[in-house]
Amino acid sequence: MKTDPKSGNHKQYKAALVVIGNEILSGRTQDKNINHLAKRLVEAGIILFEVRIVPDVEERIIEAVLNLKKEVDYVFTTGGIGPTHDDITTKSVARALGVEVEQNQEAYEMLSNHYGREKLTDARLKMAQIPKGANLIPNPVSGAPGYEINGVYVLAGVPEIMAAMLDNLLPSLKGGDVILSATVTCKLPESRIAKELYDIQDKWKNVEIGSYPNFKDGDFGVSVVLRSAHRDDLMQALQEVQDIISKNGVEFASILP
Amino acid sequence: MKTDPKSGNHKQYKAALVVIGNEILSGRTQDKNINHLAKRLVEAGIILFEVRIVPDVEERIIEAVLNLKKEVDYVFTTGGIGPTHDDITTKSVARALGVEVEQNQEAYEMLSNHYGREKLTDARLKMAQIPKGANLIPNPVSGAPGYEINGVYVLAGVPEIMAAMLDNLLPSLKGGDVILSATVTCKLPESRIAKELYDIQDKWKNVEIGSYPNFKDGDFGVSVVLRSAHRDDLMQALQEVQDIISKNGVEFASILP
Repeated sequence: MKTDPKSGNHKQYKAALVVIGNEILSGRTQDKNINHLAKRLVEAGIILFEVRIVPDVEERIIEAVLNLKKEVDYVFTTGGIGPTHDDITTKSVARALGVEVEQNQEAYEMLSNHYGREKLTDARLKMAQIPKGANLIPNPVSGAPGYEINGVYVLAGVPEIMAAMLDNLLPSLKGGDVILSATVTCKLPESRIAKELYDIQDKWKNVEIGSYPNFKDGDFGVSVVLRSAHRDDLMQALQEVQDIISKNGVEFASILP
Repeated sequence: MKTDPKSGNHKQYKAALVVIGNEILSGRTQDKNINHLAKRLVEAGIILFEVRIVPDVEERIIEAVLNLKKEVDYVFTTGGIGPTHDDITTKSVARALGVEVEQNQEAYEMLSNHYGREKLTDARLKMAQIPKGANLIPNPVSGAPGYEINGVYVLAGVPEIMAAMLDNLLPSLKGGDVILSATVTCKLPESRIAKELYDIQDKWKNVEIGSYPNFKDGDFGVSVVLRSAHRDDLMQALQEVQDIISKNGVEFASILP
């Protein structure tokens, strides 16, 4: 684990996600990849810095990839690597990075194994067109691989395939300290504990405290989420949050780190 | 409905969404607001241009709002307008737009009605702090209003409240031609129809054709989504898509416009 010599802090590793999908922006599809990636990155000690959802438009994909690449260690994309006319992710990522696209022999073999050589139509061969110098990410579900090039990780949009590619990929990514989290939920409007929460946050700088109200069956509730790489600080701040809720005379449930 | 004199096309109205939420980026919460807003905007003839999910960090909120404001007619934000220390949306939006924040008398009355005047603690009064010149958006669920200022629409993050604010708001927003859509689903891998779909897309420039593969219980399927403001073109392109699927000898289901 790397340490930043200036601050003495451990290095933070950051990722961003570009979701390429008209179907998400039109409301036809509820995205599932954002939440899945977010959870898996937490486990790997990588911070999800930003997510952008852009349409299947080359300039917009290029802009998002280049903008985010400046900010993070890893840029993921989901969607747009299939065989149809609207699958323009590879073309766009290659242009963003200034590299050529070529038929990748390893990808050709993967598709050939999946479909059988005689069924490798032009449309299917499109999925062997990969930016030069990319490292392939196997697709155990439908043959066509994803790939990594210059810190950009191009994954499928179908959630089952995206998840399989991510399983394949994550062990090879460097992460920083794993962020621990604890959640306390109770049936109080968050405004009842806002002042005390402010004070707890002020005291425990190492702990990030989020307050998330909810509204169910006519009742207000709140989840207080504490996140930190420092277990001791986290546990002490957690105790203080539990105390202010108890003081209000309501029950709470906690998920401990 | 406005017409662009240069192209003779109807004016398109565009929106962007900034989701302010550490809880989405950490994977704790599955966002529901993106999909809801996307669907409602389609009905209103407004194109969802881009979505960004950013953390509860002032600079990041400001950057996202200002970047997207240049591109669209309406910028929506969700989240971060409650009473707790991590609710920094109002402060950030005001700074982005260069306006002051002040106690809004109308918002004060709304909170006073909801909580009762004697229970208006400092934390709750924070929710009456609104950028100067903003138009309030009532919150029928929990009192604290959203607001619009300079084309930025600041909404709650709790899905039930966000939806109620949007209901309130949408009738007042101008939209363009409503985009009609039709969906054809069948059990074929999309690579089987990729070539013909390409030709249909090439022929019907007015119709945007998306191909979305899926994978269920070991079977590949595909949904072809056709979108257009022109009903006749849409219907003809739809017929051609149905024909290529029939030719492949599989059944299909269509959701017609």
